[in-house]
Amino acid sequence: MTVAPPASYERTDRTTPTRVRERASYDREVVHAILDAGYVCHLGFVRDGAPVVLPTLYGRIGERLYVHGSTGSRPLRGAGRAGDAGMPVCVTVTHVDALVLARSAFHHSLNYRSVVVHGTARQVTEEREKRAALDALVEQATPGRSADCRPASAKELAATAVLRVDLAEVSAKIRTGGVNDEAEDLPLPHWSGIVPVAPAYGTPIPDEHLAPGTPVPGYVTAL
Amino acid sequence: MTVAPPASYERTDRTTPTRVRERASYDREVVHAILDAGYVCHLGFVRDGAPVVLPTLYGRIGERLYVHGSTGSRPLRGAGRAGDAGMPVCVTVTHVDALVLARSAFHHSLNYRSVVVHGTARQVTEEREKRAALDALVEQATPGRSADCRPASAKELAATAVLRVDLAEVSAKIRTGGVNDEAEDLPLPHWSGIVPVAPAYGTPIPDEHLAPGTPVPGYVTAL
Repeated sequence: MTVAPPASYERTDRTTPTRVRERASYDREVVHAILDAGYVCHLGFVRDGAPVVLPTLYGRIGERLYVHGSTGSRPLRGAGRAGDAGMPVCVTVTHVDALVLARSAFHHSLNYRSVVVHGTARQVTEEREKRAALDALVEQATPGRSADCRPASAKELAATAVLRVDLAEVSAKIRTGGVNDEAEDLPLPHWSGIVPVAPAYGTPIPDEHLAPGTPVPGYVTAL
Repeated sequence: MTVAPPASYERTDRTTPTRVRERASYDREVVHAILDAGYVCHLGFVRDGAPVVLPTLYGRIGERLYVHGSTGSRPLRGAGRAGDAGMPVCVTVTHVDALVLARSAFHHSLNYRSVVVHGTARQVTEEREKRAALDALVEQATPGRSADCRPASAKELAATAVLRVDLAEVSAKIRTGGVNDEAEDLPLPHWSGIVPVAPAYGTPIPDEHLAPGTPVPGYVTAL
C-alpha cells in the first residue's frame, strides 16, 4: 500500500522566512508547480568555507530533484558517490512575473515565484535511475523531447554526472498582486502599476545539417 | 589622475572552470554587459555550515554590485556593518538565450550568459552611497524610473538594507551557437536546432488608484 505524502512540507527553522512570512508556502502542489514551470536552477554549495552558486539544469521526478553536471565538474566531484555522506546543497528556482512600479522608490518590488530546497546532493550511480533522471532533465526544458532523440550510449552515460536531492526541506515564496503604496502617496503624479514579464520563445532555428523539409515537432511549436 | 581598470578581471583558482574553459571570460565589458542585462541575482552565503541561495534584486555602479534586502533578513544581519569583516558571498546572474535541441540526448544544452561574483558583502551605511545604491537597484530593472518616483524618506532608508560586493573575483560563462552533434548522428531523423528564448514584457497594468488618463511613461513602453 502506498501512503500519499502529506499535502505540505514540514516547516523548519531555515525554511521560515524572517520577514514577509505571508508570502511563504509549504504546499506540495504549489512547490511542484513552481519547479515544473522552470528548468534552470541555481545550485549552491560550500567550497573551502565559501559559498558557490552555479546555474544548471534540473528535472523533477516525484519528490526527487535531479541536477545535471559533468563528472569532471567541481560540485559533482564533491558530492561523491551513492552511500557517501553527500554534499550539503541549496537549490533555488525563481520565476519573475512582473515589475511592480510603486509611486515611492521604497515600495518598488517584483512579482515572483521561487522555491528553495535545502538538502544533501548525492551522485546517481544506478543506471536505470540515471537514465530516468536524464530523460527528466530533457523533458523539464522541452516536454516531449526525450522520446524524440537518440538515448545516451553507455559511454555518454558514464561521462554525465547527475545529482539527486530529495524534496524534504522545501519552501516556496510568492508575491502577486499590485502596488502597495502608502495612502498619502496615492495622489503623486508618477505612473504606477505592474509590468508583466515572462519568458517568450522565438522562431526555432533548424540545424544547418537538418534534412530540408524536416517539420518542427509539435512539442517545440507548443513551447 | 584616475587610472583606468585593466580590461580583464584577474583569473583565480575558483574562477577557473574545471570544464569547457573556452566558454569562460574575464573581460570587464563582457561581465558588465551580462550584469546590466538583468536585475535578479541569486545570492549565496553560508549559514551554520550549509549553503543558502536566495533570489534578490541588484544594481551595478562601476565596479560595485549592490544587493537589496531588509534590515530584518538573515543574510543581511550576517553581513554586519561597514568596518566589520563582512560575509563571504557568491552572487550569480544568469540569462537563458536558447534551448539547444541536439539529435542525441547527450548533446542537449542551453545557450546562456552567466556571471559569477565571489566576494565579501558589507552593509552600506553611508547615506549618500545608500541612496545611490537604491537608485541603481530601481534603474537596473526599469531604466529611467528612479527619477520618476518619490525618493526614500529617512525612515524608509533606515528600514532598507543594502549590501555591497566589489567586482574583483569575477568570471562570465557564455554558450552561443548551434547544436554540436556527433557526425554519425547527423542522419538521424530527429528535428534539431535551437529555440531562442528571452524575457518579454506584457501590457502595463495601471494601479487602480491611478488618475485616469495618466500616460504610461516612455521608459516603461521601452522595456
